Amino acid sequence: MQRTLVEDLSAHCGEQVLVKGWLERIRELSTVTFLILRDRTGTVQIAADPKLYAELKLSTESVVEVLGRVHSEPRAKAGFEVAADKITVLSRAENLPIQINGPVLNVPLELALDNRVLSLRHRLINPIFRIQAALVHGFQTFLSREGFVQVFTPKIVASGTEGGTELFPLQYFEEKAFLCQSPQFYKQMMVGAGYERVYEVGHVYRAEKHATSRHLNEYVSLDLEMGFIEDEHEIMALENRLLAFMFSYTAERCAKELHILDVEVPSVPAAIPKIALDDALALLTEKYGKQAAGQDLDPEGERLLSEHIKETTGSEFVFVTDYPWEKRPMYTMPKGTGLTRSFDLLFRGLEITTGGQRIHTHDLLVENIRKKGLDPDAFSSYIENFAWGMPPHGGLAIGLERLTAQLLGLANVREASLFPRDRFRLTP
Amino acid sequence: MQRTLVEDLSAHCGEQVLVKGWLERIRELSTVTFLILRDRTGTVQIAADPKLYAELKLSTESVVEVLGRVHSEPRAKAGFEVAADKITVLSRAENLPIQINGPVLNVPLELALDNRVLSLRHRLINPIFRIQAALVHGFQTFLSREGFVQVFTPKIVASGTEGGTELFPLQYFEEKAFLCQSPQFYKQMMVGAGYERVYEVGHVYRAEKHATSRHLNEYVSLDLEMGFIEDEHEIMALENRLLAFMFSYTAERCAKELHILDVEVPSVPAAIPKIALDDALALLTEKYGKQAAGQDLDPEGERLLSEHIKETTGSEFVFVTDYPWEKRPMYTMPKGTGLTRSFDLLFRGLEITTGGQRIHTHDLLVENIRKKGLDPDAFSSYIENFAWGMPPHGGLAIGLERLTAQLLGLANVREASLFPRDRFRLTP
Repeated sequence: MQRTLVEDLSAHCGEQVLVKGWLERIRELSTVTFLILRDRTGTVQIAADPKLYAELKLSTESVVEVLGRVHSEPRAKAGFEVAADKITVLSRAENLPIQINGPVLNVPLELALDNRVLSLRHRLINPIFRIQAALVHGFQTFLSREGFVQVFTPKIVASGTEGGTELFPLQYFEEKAFLCQSPQFYKQMMVGAGYERVYEVGHVYRAEKHATSRHLNEYVSLDLEMGFIEDEHEIMALENRLLAFMFSYTAERCAKELHILDVEVPSVPAAIPKIALDDALALLTEKYGKQAAGQDLDPEGERLLSEHIKETTGSEFVFVTDYPWEKRPMYTMPKGTGLTRSFDLLFRGLEITTGGQRIHTHDLLVENIRKKGLDPDAFSSYIENFAWGMPPHGGLAIGLERLTAQLLGLANVREASLFPRDRFRLTP
Repeated sequence: MQRTLVEDLSAHCGEQVLVKGWLERIRELSTVTFLILRDRTGTVQIAADPKLYAELKLSTESVVEVLGRVHSEPRAKAGFEVAADKITVLSRAENLPIQINGPVLNVPLELALDNRVLSLRHRLINPIFRIQAALVHGFQTFLSREGFVQVFTPKIVASGTEGGTELFPLQYFEEKAFLCQSPQFYKQMMVGAGYERVYEVGHVYRAEKHATSRHLNEYVSLDLEMGFIEDEHEIMALENRLLAFMFSYTAERCAKELHILDVEVPSVPAAIPKIALDDALALLTEKYGKQAAGQDLDPEGERLLSEHIKETTGSEFVFVTDYPWEKRPMYTMPKGTGLTRSFDLLFRGLEITTGGQRIHTHDLLVENIRKKGLDPDAFSSYIENFAWGMPPHGGLAIGLERLTAQLLGLANVREASLFPRDRFRLTP
């Protein structure tokens, strides 16, 4: 007999069905045993004869299939239940290290991550990664429609994009190699290879030693790069439309999950506000008495600036533009005196994107690398491409876990990673 | 002025347009200079006054923008050309190490890979990765519609899936780690985490020392896993529908690219033929006089079997089933005496998929691991999940570069990787 998913049961009232899933709850009364069965689409109440159930001796989270009849039952949450004729055990569960059938998962994050397969079953955790998947598929769908080509570039590299710091070293046969900290060089090269518009969804690696709620050592980067742009504002305009699409795509496909998590998907304004970094720093000093810690926003600065923009424009997003030359990598296009054609995007007080226009001419690139105190020879297999015809171009990267965490109001970015890799965590 | 893409020019006859791209060819006659300009959508002939062109002193592959007027010109390939009013240089090219404007790219593969950004511009190479992107997007689209959740699982792991062989070692802060050779464990865990159906598109790493035309040390694996299956035939049925979708999706979106490469997308039969491995080996001996080299198909065996199936059924695909227990990893579901519920899929003479049903009960898994001579303790963070309720499940993995190479008739799988990592190649 064909399986019926829980979400389809209401169309089968009065019929015999086969349902399959995990036993989320077991309540034994004298005349009936109630089982709550959970599958990937929801939960349903099963009413079983105590004798039918007793001989099975099941624990919660065991996997079963139940042959039974759907009948209306006003006291059940859904208005119907399944009266069991036969229960077959597919896989027994026992000695669960954490209980996951409460209204909230009441265990420390480390324990939840240690027992990830269990904690992911919890009703408030499972939806996180369905929503994350929708965000990614929205990213891929929008960009494919806009003529972008999805690429897969290597994660084992001979050198870093920013000069060898914060890299995980790796033995590649006889050679020393590193894990890629960004597909930056490769996506630029793909623009130059004639694709003009490319995107990549892939892991990147940062060997940063600090353990914060905002950092992961392995994370998913949503990268894009496009050629023949006028300036960095074209990249921001694209991101504006991209985010609007991703959020409406997710709202449409994950209505149930967003409802369970009580999350409102933000409306993306037609033109996300922009503010130059210098103006932002001056504003923070003036309005909040905050002294700038160097020429950059610290986490508190990001929060306050977002607060100010929300108050004054209603937008939960803000582009911070015109970062100083000192703060940006060597491939960033300079602008005027001491600035660059680069930007960050803050969403609800956290930076989720870095982007900008890149240098596209060979001599300027070499000069900029030297000014940064780096050796052009160390980047020769990147630089040489700029002597072979490279269009003006730019792009951006969105940190997937950060985007997810901010959207869902998660306190720690590791909650938005299935199996986070951080300073002290390498398993499961 | 807004840029017009080459593919849209025919709708602008008689109008002024701005086109942007690379100079693929330059032909200087006494009264006119012809330039072939290439953008991501195609090529167009530009007719320029020799004086306008001469002062620019351009080499092929320089990036320019041309302001001009579209007018009909029967002698041009497209039936029209652009008469240039103004040519602006965006980025000069010089000293190209390889010439890429010939009808075929007449350089050895190593040289093409050394100069990848250039070789990718070639008319017969550029389409490969547009087609590959369509295959991937087809994979993602089909599975999302079928209720699969896209997941991202770690590539830095504490141990291998098959017992520690062929792994790239890595220093992860104080700990020794490895690059993941397959998302196998994680995708199974995601089924058990309640998602039931998951897929992943990501890199996997094999530290195999042999350099062949069929192997890469870093490649893209299209992985899926699904729960609540009856047996391995359900996985094969899904792959059958999946491939049909991926190929028709690609044929529709890449008609131009497939035409350029003169490739016919195969029709996927409603039911791809199946043959048990033992029967396949017997058939090869009987029909081709081929002696089996152990209980497996070697490359020649794969070719001959595909040839036989094509002759007798017309199918370019064949599932080889019932692999012996010795040949399959410890997580494979046993079947009868000495066999397993596993399969390979051959496409045009090459294995592009391995799949099967997995063990889903704790005790059988532990027993099987022991029988393989492995230590269950080495896999504890995997095995423990099987005591917490795991549905019957199975899945498969498709090697993206192999699939692409077989579809397009490429002789070497490295031609289907943007930046291959192989025994001796770590750059670009």
